[in-house]
Amino acid sequence: MINKQVLFMKRPIGIPDKSIWKYSESEIRDLNQNEFLIKNHYISLDPAMRGWMNDAPSYIAPVQIGEVMRAGTVGEVIKSNNENFKIGQFVSGWGGVQEYCISIGDNYNKIYPGEMPLPTFLGYLGMPGMTAYFGILQEGEIKEGDIVLVSAAAGAVGSLVGQIAKIKRCRVIGIAGGKEKCDFLVKELGFDDAIDYKNENIYTSLKEKFPKGIDVYFDNVGGEILDAVLTRINKNARIVICGAISQYNNKTKVVGPSNYMSLLVNRASMKGMVVFDYKENYMKAFTDIATWFKEGKLKNNDTIIEGIENFHEAFLKLFSGDKLGKLVLKIKNEK
Amino acid sequence: MINKQVLFMKRPIGIPDKSIWKYSESEIRDLNQNEFLIKNHYISLDPAMRGWMNDAPSYIAPVQIGEVMRAGTVGEVIKSNNENFKIGQFVSGWGGVQEYCISIGDNYNKIYPGEMPLPTFLGYLGMPGMTAYFGILQEGEIKEGDIVLVSAAAGAVGSLVGQIAKIKRCRVIGIAGGKEKCDFLVKELGFDDAIDYKNENIYTSLKEKFPKGIDVYFDNVGGEILDAVLTRINKNARIVICGAISQYNNKTKVVGPSNYMSLLVNRASMKGMVVFDYKENYMKAFTDIATWFKEGKLKNNDTIIEGIENFHEAFLKLFSGDKLGKLVLKIKNEK
Repeated sequence: MINKQVLFMKRPIGIPDKSIWKYSESEIRDLNQNEFLIKNHYISLDPAMRGWMNDAPSYIAPVQIGEVMRAGTVGEVIKSNNENFKIGQFVSGWGGVQEYCISIGDNYNKIYPGEMPLPTFLGYLGMPGMTAYFGILQEGEIKEGDIVLVSAAAGAVGSLVGQIAKIKRCRVIGIAGGKEKCDFLVKELGFDDAIDYKNENIYTSLKEKFPKGIDVYFDNVGGEILDAVLTRINKNARIVICGAISQYNNKTKVVGPSNYMSLLVNRASMKGMVVFDYKENYMKAFTDIATWFKEGKLKNNDTIIEGIENFHEAFLKLFSGDKLGKLVLKIKNEK
Repeated sequence: MINKQVLFMKRPIGIPDKSIWKYSESEIRDLNQNEFLIKNHYISLDPAMRGWMNDAPSYIAPVQIGEVMRAGTVGEVIKSNNENFKIGQFVSGWGGVQEYCISIGDNYNKIYPGEMPLPTFLGYLGMPGMTAYFGILQEGEIKEGDIVLVSAAAGAVGSLVGQIAKIKRCRVIGIAGGKEKCDFLVKELGFDDAIDYKNENIYTSLKEKFPKGIDVYFDNVGGEILDAVLTRINKNARIVICGAISQYNNKTKVVGPSNYMSLLVNRASMKGMVVFDYKENYMKAFTDIATWFKEGKLKNNDTIIEGIENFHEAFLKLFSGDKLGKLVLKIKNEK
């Protein structure tokens, strides 16, 4: 049986081009004791993957040259020498950008799709969901009436951050690129307002839409938007640094927030977060999100691209913004 | 009776030149009901004064053109229509850059010099002392064994921050400009080590002197040093933003910390502080600092310049670094 894989061949500078990857096919070996074979159904595409490609110290080791590209996956056990993972069991884990993978169970969780669509386990019930939940509730410390701003608001993390803040009775404004996304935030997800950073002056719009300032800013983008937001924060504001997608493909030095002294004037904080730190409480988040989902309080939106051979083009959509909600790669012929 | 005053005449761009000030003399008027007349003995010179000169929203209103320059002072009541402030009472407050001032008592505190030298009430027992105390203990949350770095370490705030951290059994390293100051930190104040930023490469020295990283950074300077420190912080590090003296006289935009994404990788926080927020607990800090002082656990160092006519030259020493410890202006002929 043949496994199609995407191997990481070269550390990119700037936006990765196709030469970074090698599309490879290899025969799947026999299973050893305790091993099982997973057929991946969906592969998660996340901005964080760009960071894992750099050879720099970070919260997780960089992907090594020649390895299968690291990615979160959901799939189904189709062969097994492991009593705990029987054939037919659905699992989520670090399956990588490939059609099949072999595991002994470490770093794999059993999942029970039931009423939930399978890609949800890579989105609202996966890492992006956990990130949004702990980021806005624990680090953002939102309370009723807070004025909350989130960037990359139509993305996998941002769209959930905003919806959770609405559930907690905050006033929520999202930043996204283009009219379609902004309409989606307000009309579909129930955000109070949206800023189209591609067609509006961010300084002017922040001023107009935040006459009473910003209490919590959940930042996924960094760069000029973070700098602009710093001019509008309230006393004791919390800025949650979740990502800085505007800077990930920089060929030059990252642009630092030149208005950071607003933190002093406003006794505000800027704090970084990494989702893995909340591991022990994932179950609580999972339960809350699933409940809100079933109660109709959360709306989901996935952008699904089919075919592992389209990985590179799909991956680039993370940075071009040409997608809505969670971006996943679907293995062909899967449900 | 004549009052010599320094009036603020023009908002500076960059380093203030002498044309910013008008040295004026005026007759002191008669006292109204409840008023009392203070003869200032010492005037506090603080980096924060540079910020008050800018016409920008901040934690305190800017000084208005034509006003006496705002400054903290200690002095003695020499005439009084106020029962609560009798002749001979020593007071600290916002007396401004002038030899005398009239007050009804708002924003003035009675002080009792006793065994403490009078300038101490502008230093370790004044705003710099309160800033250091709450900044390192409450915001820095230091605990025994923490590795602590402080910039402008030979200054009024930094020198106390470091000594408090030593009392709390931290490992403490200070950054200062020049061998004399660095020697002072280690030999006089008991710091574990010092970095001379004027004669050392800050990146190299941080690497050498912090093989185990930095848990708490108390920042008074901003700019390149903050950026360099961000590359050496530990997981869950706390950066206390107290000031950014390297940027106060900028003619161009402030330089933001381009390595701020280290906050994410290290789940670290950067938080601004303004001393006035801790007002309700000043007495606790005051008592602790006075006790440590009497027990010989704290060493003090003041740079005293005499004569109100030397205000401008004295003020510039804040930015040139040509002073040690707390900088004060002494009114001539005072003890």
